[in-house]
Amino acid sequence: MSEDDGVRWLSETEMLAWRSYIVATMRLRQRLHRELADRHDISLADYEVLVCVSLKPENRIRMTELATMLGSTKSRLSHQVGRMEAAGVVRRGRDPEDKRGVVAELTDAGQKLLEQAAPTHVDGVRVHLIDLLTEHEQAAFGEAFSRVLDHLTELEA
Amino acid sequence: MSEDDGVRWLSETEMLAWRSYIVATMRLRQRLHRELADRHDISLADYEVLVCVSLKPENRIRMTELATMLGSTKSRLSHQVGRMEAAGVVRRGRDPEDKRGVVAELTDAGQKLLEQAAPTHVDGVRVHLIDLLTEHEQAAFGEAFSRVLDHLTELEA
Repeated sequence: MSEDDGVRWLSETEMLAWRSYIVATMRLRQRLHRELADRHDISLADYEVLVCVSLKPENRIRMTELATMLGSTKSRLSHQVGRMEAAGVVRRGRDPEDKRGVVAELTDAGQKLLEQAAPTHVDGVRVHLIDLLTEHEQAAFGEAFSRVLDHLTELEA
Repeated sequence: MSEDDGVRWLSETEMLAWRSYIVATMRLRQRLHRELADRHDISLADYEVLVCVSLKPENRIRMTELATMLGSTKSRLSHQVGRMEAAGVVRRGRDPEDKRGVVAELTDAGQKLLEQAAPTHVDGVRVHLIDLLTEHEQAAFGEAFSRVLDHLTELEA
């Protein structure tokens, strides 16, 4: 609490916005997870790792950058990527540009899994979220969440 | 994929809405988690359990209902509540109304922790999200996410 005037509890509209956002997000992630797990035997969390790696040149990313992108800690991510390495979908190695750094890269199997799973994920995102929003709401979402992201980035710079 | 006409990939506006939502949400949860962990030594996930239990009469909830509210599985929740029980903030017992059911209830220490942590959490929700939205955006969020929630509830009924 940075102010002395006590807690600014949420009004009814604010509470409704917050609760529906937080509960819908939880339920949405659960649903997307289950669709990926059922059809491709991959968790949503692991799918997100594959996506992040695939966004980088040569399908290779530094572990520290990956942790930031995923909002994970170094140690939690290291466990997760370890399990994914054992499953053969990523491979870890020294960063060719900085010998102290570790990178993760997609294997051929990881690339293939990502290509198979992506249509399921995109279809889920569409059917369970995007198609339920008007175009106006889509634009408002993009704008509002970008603002939140800028705020958090500034705070943590 | 339920249709034969291939994958309906996201347009640029749709992709921006989705990405900013998903990344901002991850970063926001991380921030709220760190504030609770730093100031009250409780994780965001455990705080959410305390809130859910406290919303019910007599601060007592069936584990199956708690799992649904949190979008958790029975086994993952059971581990989490086991750790919280060891920490003394909740207690498990037989459901007085259904001997086959298990309930979790707040202990006095859990109640106290919740009261101490709530102002931190509400302040974080305000500063990092609610206060960054216009009133119009707050209402739109509430409406859109309620729609998503209704859709998922219907699907899974």
